[in-house]
Amino acid sequence: MNKEQIHPMDVILKKRDGIELRPEEIHAFIRDVVAGKVTDARIAAWLMAVFQRGMTAEELASLTQAMRSSGEEFNASFLAKFCVDKHSTGGVGDKTSLLIAPIVAAAGLADPMISGRSLGHTGGTLDKMETIPGYNTQLSMEQFGEVIAKCGCSIIGQTKNLVPADRILYALRDHTGTVESPNLICASIMSKKLASGLNGLVLDVKTGSGAFMKTYEASEHLARLMVETGELAGVRVAALLTTMDEPLGRFAGNWIEVWECIEIMQGKQHPMYADLIELSVTLAGWMLCLGDKVSSPEEGRTRALELLHDGSAYKHWLQMVKLHGGKTSLFENPAAFHKPKVVRELKADRDGYLAGMDCTEVGWAVQRLGAGREKPGGPVSAHAGIEMHAKLGALLKKGDTLVTMFGDSEEQVDTAEEMLRGTIRIENEAPMKKWLIRTAITKDEL
Amino acid sequence: MNKEQIHPMDVILKKRDGIELRPEEIHAFIRDVVAGKVTDARIAAWLMAVFQRGMTAEELASLTQAMRSSGEEFNASFLAKFCVDKHSTGGVGDKTSLLIAPIVAAAGLADPMISGRSLGHTGGTLDKMETIPGYNTQLSMEQFGEVIAKCGCSIIGQTKNLVPADRILYALRDHTGTVESPNLICASIMSKKLASGLNGLVLDVKTGSGAFMKTYEASEHLARLMVETGELAGVRVAALLTTMDEPLGRFAGNWIEVWECIEIMQGKQHPMYADLIELSVTLAGWMLCLGDKVSSPEEGRTRALELLHDGSAYKHWLQMVKLHGGKTSLFENPAAFHKPKVVRELKADRDGYLAGMDCTEVGWAVQRLGAGREKPGGPVSAHAGIEMHAKLGALLKKGDTLVTMFGDSEEQVDTAEEMLRGTIRIENEAPMKKWLIRTAITKDEL
Repeated sequence: MNKEQIHPMDVILKKRDGIELRPEEIHAFIRDVVAGKVTDARIAAWLMAVFQRGMTAEELASLTQAMRSSGEEFNASFLAKFCVDKHSTGGVGDKTSLLIAPIVAAAGLADPMISGRSLGHTGGTLDKMETIPGYNTQLSMEQFGEVIAKCGCSIIGQTKNLVPADRILYALRDHTGTVESPNLICASIMSKKLASGLNGLVLDVKTGSGAFMKTYEASEHLARLMVETGELAGVRVAALLTTMDEPLGRFAGNWIEVWECIEIMQGKQHPMYADLIELSVTLAGWMLCLGDKVSSPEEGRTRALELLHDGSAYKHWLQMVKLHGGKTSLFENPAAFHKPKVVRELKADRDGYLAGMDCTEVGWAVQRLGAGREKPGGPVSAHAGIEMHAKLGALLKKGDTLVTMFGDSEEQVDTAEEMLRGTIRIENEAPMKKWLIRTAITKDEL
Repeated sequence: MNKEQIHPMDVILKKRDGIELRPEEIHAFIRDVVAGKVTDARIAAWLMAVFQRGMTAEELASLTQAMRSSGEEFNASFLAKFCVDKHSTGGVGDKTSLLIAPIVAAAGLADPMISGRSLGHTGGTLDKMETIPGYNTQLSMEQFGEVIAKCGCSIIGQTKNLVPADRILYALRDHTGTVESPNLICASIMSKKLASGLNGLVLDVKTGSGAFMKTYEASEHLARLMVETGELAGVRVAALLTTMDEPLGRFAGNWIEVWECIEIMQGKQHPMYADLIELSVTLAGWMLCLGDKVSSPEEGRTRALELLHDGSAYKHWLQMVKLHGGKTSLFENPAAFHKPKVVRELKADRDGYLAGMDCTEVGWAVQRLGAGREKPGGPVSAHAGIEMHAKLGALLKKGDTLVTMFGDSEEQVDTAEEMLRGTIRIENEAPMKKWLIRTAITKDEL
């Protein structure tokens, strides 16, 4: 700690006036925030000033580092393995984490995956994992390390002491309308990822109607910020911009997404699995490449697909779930464990092509069915969600099933049905479908 | 009240994104702020967004009106007189209010003057008036009206219920580094002036080294905002940009400034009084012109000078002080009432011209002598302050007295002496002296 007295007000005034903050000023501010020495009003004023003025790459790197070191960190060095993780900016039916962690572990790398819960219209990996009876997501850092040492991966929830600065800043951003700052989003994501002791990170930055970022340019900007910030912190980072215009894979919900992943790892086939598998092995391929297990992302993709098909990934998955206390016997017939109270089908009301939908609205319908929470800390339904029966561009006949809805009550299903009916479009012309994987950004592209 | 539900968060988000707020949105926000329904963090975020994004003239007018009507207002209509006041953005040794209120009253207009206390390096009219034994600055609105009905003017302090929105917003601006927004400064000043029931207002916007606004352009911008905002509220407004490069008049402090004004109203002469008299009658002249007592500001200036010289202003002053319970017998020999504990002279250390000073630093020296407060609500010394013995451009000889310092302790005087010595410059060349009155801005110049 340096002796210089840096007052929070000075940090606010400089940012207010667009003067670049020195690293020690940002570190002092975040230290004071976490120590409870800065009032909410001052933090809010600073957040709004950052929102308006932006940050230089150096400021953003300092903010991320200051947040990262504001609490407990996972020290992965004892594993003596390249630690690599994937982070997605949030999607609908996006369950790639459940496939990627075991693939990466099977390839001989370590994936210390600290995941989040459902947020807004998007699902959360943690909520999905917790539908596995017995699976404990609340491990200590020590237990986390032990599981990874044994099976190469572990999926847990954020501990209370991991990046406490983010908890404080995020709550105030949410309260004061400063969530959508690319700099603050980047610092929030990257501080948590860096605190989990990574050597490499692959980012899945969503774009399209189901993404948080409303334009391709905004997604690309955020991707660049995250790559730059990670590289400045000494982590190898690649970001993929991927399309989120429809739910990924077959299911969107909680247990039904676990079911889908189990079937894929068991080698079962289903036409609706294709995009999920493609995105998962592409992301995993980049992770293998960052960890020098392969010489290119393309080679990595091939290797990831092998590990998925030859049962290696499933072996690591089973081991991980067992180490977390999870009941793997259910995996023999995952469909049998799915017990929704209400099931209703939504059918095509005309012939034509599945032309489009507002994927954010579809995500909200899934949440309203019970897959998401009414308020922070509330429960989620394990069995709620939707099964999609067609991908964009599919040619449909009137009466074909489009979506199966699973809910806890008829009212929930009524609401979801209305939302889905209002947003899913069937037209005479086949839509222009966007590539699933739009582009990759690494430090060479900055 | 309209039925539309306007949430504070919507108002924050629109201002954050630079979208113009509708009047009803601003009114709803301020109503919620005063009702205690908006957290400090949200108010702070909004203030910083306003600071960064600015406001349109319509937004500023709405904000000012919303703040004005947030509490009690002085209804001056029963006086059946043109009500006019003067407001200064704050200076050192600026005691024009004490001369202007009686001049304006003597001219047959009404001046309901609600004044403030010492702020930062500047003095406060209220602190000065309260050095008159017995003078009560805490009148109710009813008593305030009675005094004005009898003598044409009254100088009081802000009541608790006058513009409560400003008290809340000002405290948060001070706390979060958002004081210096021209829009927020304008709304703060104008809401209070409009709540005191004015028909006309003359603004003395300071520029120079002793002004709060650091550049001439910033002062001019603020002046234009205030003129526009006042005129949009149906008040006749003129703003004068005046130079504050050295203390105005002879004294800067509390009682000593009252003493100076009494002597001027009594017709006593002193070479150091000239700039104070000139500024006072110029401002009063504009007030008489706005109130249609004369046909031009120049004619108003002449009339104001007459009212000062023929004893009319002094008569109204005595009447006003008596109606407030003040002891006017002291006015026969104001110098005798001045009893500083420590008196020390600062002398010229060389021959030359009085070339310049940082007038803000001089103001701080005056406050450190005891004329200002250590913290809000604290006491001020009635007898602390300085007497200036020369104006900028004066030719001095080594050993001439430059400043007499009055303090409560040797330590205070030591501090002030060091500050004054550090900032007052004597040079071989006579300085380029700026005009006292730089320009006037009315709605025709907008």
